[in-house]
Amino acid sequence: MNRPLLQLALDHTSLNQALQSVSALRNHVDIIEAGTILCISEGLQAVRALRQMCPDSIIVADLKVADAGETLATEAFDAGANWMTVICAAPLATVIKAHQVAQSRGGEIQIELFGNWTLDDAKAWRAAGVRQAIYHRGRDAQASGQSWSQQDLDRMKQLSDLGLELSITGGITPQDLALFKDISVRAFIAGRALSEVEHPKEVAQAFHQQIDEIWGASR
Amino acid sequence: MNRPLLQLALDHTSLNQALQSVSALRNHVDIIEAGTILCISEGLQAVRALRQMCPDSIIVADLKVADAGETLATEAFDAGANWMTVICAAPLATVIKAHQVAQSRGGEIQIELFGNWTLDDAKAWRAAGVRQAIYHRGRDAQASGQSWSQQDLDRMKQLSDLGLELSITGGITPQDLALFKDISVRAFIAGRALSEVEHPKEVAQAFHQQIDEIWGASR
Repeated sequence: MNRPLLQLALDHTSLNQALQSVSALRNHVDIIEAGTILCISEGLQAVRALRQMCPDSIIVADLKVADAGETLATEAFDAGANWMTVICAAPLATVIKAHQVAQSRGGEIQIELFGNWTLDDAKAWRAAGVRQAIYHRGRDAQASGQSWSQQDLDRMKQLSDLGLELSITGGITPQDLALFKDISVRAFIAGRALSEVEHPKEVAQAFHQQIDEIWGASR
Repeated sequence: MNRPLLQLALDHTSLNQALQSVSALRNHVDIIEAGTILCISEGLQAVRALRQMCPDSIIVADLKVADAGETLATEAFDAGANWMTVICAAPLATVIKAHQVAQSRGGEIQIELFGNWTLDDAKAWRAAGVRQAIYHRGRDAQASGQSWSQQDLDRMKQLSDLGLELSITGGITPQDLALFKDISVRAFIAGRALSEVEHPKEVAQAFHQQIDEIWGASR
């Protein structure tokens, strides 16, 4: 199993503030995500600015595409994204179109799992060639007290077993990582846990240390 | 039953092109929508520009919010939107937060129905105070040949009967409108059918004529 990566999610409403966060953390994370809030507030110029600032990083456009897969994927990959998210509620036709554009650009799409979805959906995504999904404990779900449950972990394992690599997000802390040791994790995604703390680099280091301890590989 | 309104959806990737479309059609439609493609390409400056250009129109921010309901609703209503869309896959906590922000601003949210959702979900949205939903034949679903079916119409009727007003979209033409005569329709949404035709005003007039014929009320 590959060593999970660490992804910084930028959910700022201001591009300038997001870029300050990147400036502090770019050498301490593996992936930089233009979060939905940032993309909606500032548009895809946010992705273009990140690509310019971090020419060699993996950049994710977290657009949660629900329709118009071809147009939005074209826009996102043109702007410099490597990966783009598609919401699980999107019709399969949208997933397929977005995946085709991604493939033609050497990129990937990630299915963002929110609300109702089934293992049959996941099988259909795999059959369409999709390799990644994002398992999400939502911001509002967290705030209303929902935590990581055995049911979450069981569903993640089922997705792993189908061949989907998961990125895991939603108020995750270094102390949580051991929960996911049997799952095929592509990345742990942290937003405010990294960008809204006093010592962001130290938190990033704590993530990497935990990843090293659990998955064993060195950076 | 109220007379349905006509909504222009702007799915341009360029704000300038969108504003040209608005300039041609603003006096011939009732509602102007900053579509997802436009909002993602240009950010919420698109909504601000529409509000400035059309101070008295109903403006929709089609953000298909899946998480961070409070932040995104605050951003959208601050930018000048009257209505904002939330995707049906969003956790109920997100729907509630977005609805609360909307209410505090005299706005409304609209649940965008895509993929898996149930009548129990619809009852929960109603119980939370939501009054509008968008019934969507997706762009990619259209392209792959899916048409309006009796199943679509039956589900729309069930939603109507729960007290949800529907806006209906997805390659809709004036000739389709009679299909929806028993449904509580808030608006018919047309995008490329209005903005990518040679005579957009005539198409808008054809929509209004059909609405008048079927629903009887004058404009």
